[in-house]
Amino acid sequence: VKRCVLLLMTLPLQLRKPYLLFLGAATGPAEAKTAFGIRDWVPEACVAQLRLSGSRVDLGLPDLAPAAARAAGARSLLIGVAPPGGRIPESWCASLIEAADAGLDIVSGMHTLLEEVPGLSEAAARNGIALANVRRPRQGFSVATGRPRRGKRLLTVGTDCALGKKYTALALARAMRARGLDAEFRATGQTGIMIAGSGVAIDAVVVDFVAGAAESLSPEAAPDHWDVIEGQGSLFHPAYAGVTLGLVHGSQPDVMILCHDPTRTHIFNWEFMPLPSLDAAIARYVEVARDTNPAARVAGISLNTSQLDAAARQRVIAETQARYGLPCFDPILTSLDAAVDKVLSP
Amino acid sequence: VKRCVLLLMTLPLQLRKPYLLFLGAATGPAEAKTAFGIRDWVPEACVAQLRLSGSRVDLGLPDLAPAAARAAGARSLLIGVAPPGGRIPESWCASLIEAADAGLDIVSGMHTLLEEVPGLSEAAARNGIALANVRRPRQGFSVATGRPRRGKRLLTVGTDCALGKKYTALALARAMRARGLDAEFRATGQTGIMIAGSGVAIDAVVVDFVAGAAESLSPEAAPDHWDVIEGQGSLFHPAYAGVTLGLVHGSQPDVMILCHDPTRTHIFNWEFMPLPSLDAAIARYVEVARDTNPAARVAGISLNTSQLDAAARQRVIAETQARYGLPCFDPILTSLDAAVDKVLSP
Repeated sequence: VKRCVLLLMTLPLQLRKPYLLFLGAATGPAEAKTAFGIRDWVPEACVAQLRLSGSRVDLGLPDLAPAAARAAGARSLLIGVAPPGGRIPESWCASLIEAADAGLDIVSGMHTLLEEVPGLSEAAARNGIALANVRRPRQGFSVATGRPRRGKRLLTVGTDCALGKKYTALALARAMRARGLDAEFRATGQTGIMIAGSGVAIDAVVVDFVAGAAESLSPEAAPDHWDVIEGQGSLFHPAYAGVTLGLVHGSQPDVMILCHDPTRTHIFNWEFMPLPSLDAAIARYVEVARDTNPAARVAGISLNTSQLDAAARQRVIAETQARYGLPCFDPILTSLDAAVDKVLSP
Repeated sequence: VKRCVLLLMTLPLQLRKPYLLFLGAATGPAEAKTAFGIRDWVPEACVAQLRLSGSRVDLGLPDLAPAAARAAGARSLLIGVAPPGGRIPESWCASLIEAADAGLDIVSGMHTLLEEVPGLSEAAARNGIALANVRRPRQGFSVATGRPRRGKRLLTVGTDCALGKKYTALALARAMRARGLDAEFRATGQTGIMIAGSGVAIDAVVVDFVAGAAESLSPEAAPDHWDVIEGQGSLFHPAYAGVTLGLVHGSQPDVMILCHDPTRTHIFNWEFMPLPSLDAAIARYVEVARDTNPAARVAGISLNTSQLDAAARQRVIAETQARYGLPCFDPILTSLDAAVDKVLSP
């Protein structure tokens, strides 16, 4: 067993798609944000939904029990809902065990480890299925080498947390592929990992190995291959800047896209700390990225304008573009074409 | 048992002094660097040494077996030697178990967990002694708050790893106490923790909690109390910069002392990466430290001139001081007075 565990530790996380999306008894879309994100970004990976009585959320997918979902092709039950506190309630246990008995892997981003659900480890062993806790990196990582590697890398960075770095990376990878480019989304957070089917929950890595984990996430590739890497945190964040710096150094980005919410004045949940200006953010990201890639540059600004009315959204995008001389877009509202152009040719 | 483990997780590491210093069969002082550091910095914490046959290292302490050392007042056996690879050899096991049976805690900075030494967990349980793996933080940490706290903080920072940040912090704390100041050394690495008897192995913390761990290491204190914090890594290091940034942000230093080796041109063991200039390093450290403490400043430069001849050492120190307009010293060669003056009054 110990040897098996050590062997597993050396393997990157790889989720088995497609998914049966488990919604528990979610009463609103905010609670089921993960499931909606997966349905929107990888609809081809979504076979069905499984809801408990009381649920008022509908993904527009067939309602199937685990065995029927397995028969329809599903390979994993994915917990697509996050109740307050991030714990797995007792009311889910029977469904999770039923899924394991139907031959589905279980995929979770909850704080509760799947191994802590009574009876689930036994069901997993009995059926030879995997329990994937995407919040806990299972893989062992090496110290970063700092050595340049072939292939191109784009990293989304931000003036703050929780303002669209994952969404922007997904939208850029999609726009680049639509042009026929060889572009791949690389996930660093749990929802991103569930969408991609693989990745590293970078904020859960021991700090000595963060840059090394980032290196392993976007390995050497063909010269014209683009890894589009999901950013995390912010260099200016009083708690999480170490995550961001390790990710920037290890990713060795050729290009960064700066993500920003123009309505924020202070760091989210740190209301006594002002947000950096876009100038300061661009200067700092370029400065530190050049530690490991002297050619690093910022090629565009992604604005999350969802808090503004329609007229203001367009105005802020145009004003920001004029002021900074960089392509500026809101990925859920406007075209990414100018930014992709700028990514491809400085 | 589970409740006990959870309770232990919430307690900061606290080693029991004084020590019986275990030297194994070390054949030279380089291997016993940890033991020499502890003897030099906290001689009052060193009761005796324990050497295996073949050892050619002598700390100038009495040779005592564990039971005799315990009778002479020792409370812990401390492994003061690091064989290549950092593993505990089988030839040590009998001595470690004998020490546990004599009622001594065991303190180790080795990669091998003490719990992996055959028979040692049982001996610990039998005798009610503690096994302290200082390389593995046992404590759970919170996310950093970023909130200012009372008390003064000094952090040593560097242009690279392994050039004197621990030594400089210890020397500064000693010089400040010699002036009657209320100054305390705060350890962030294993040798520092053994010297101080407490601390956090900051590079082994999960990255999301690094700044929070740094906050807990130098908590709110009296307005004229100084925590003198051992720095780690370098903001410019391709593998470890995330450690350094989290430590800077969480420490909220009022003052930093920049440590540098004037003979280094490249990052240690990363020979293809040039070292930053002192100007660039000062600018970057001040910039990022001001994210969480707008008054942060660099008050002096600590030079490790051990690779130079006597005349060159003094010349480089004088030239550096003239060029940067900051007090400059080598802590094993020259006075720290001017730097302490500058720490106390900008």
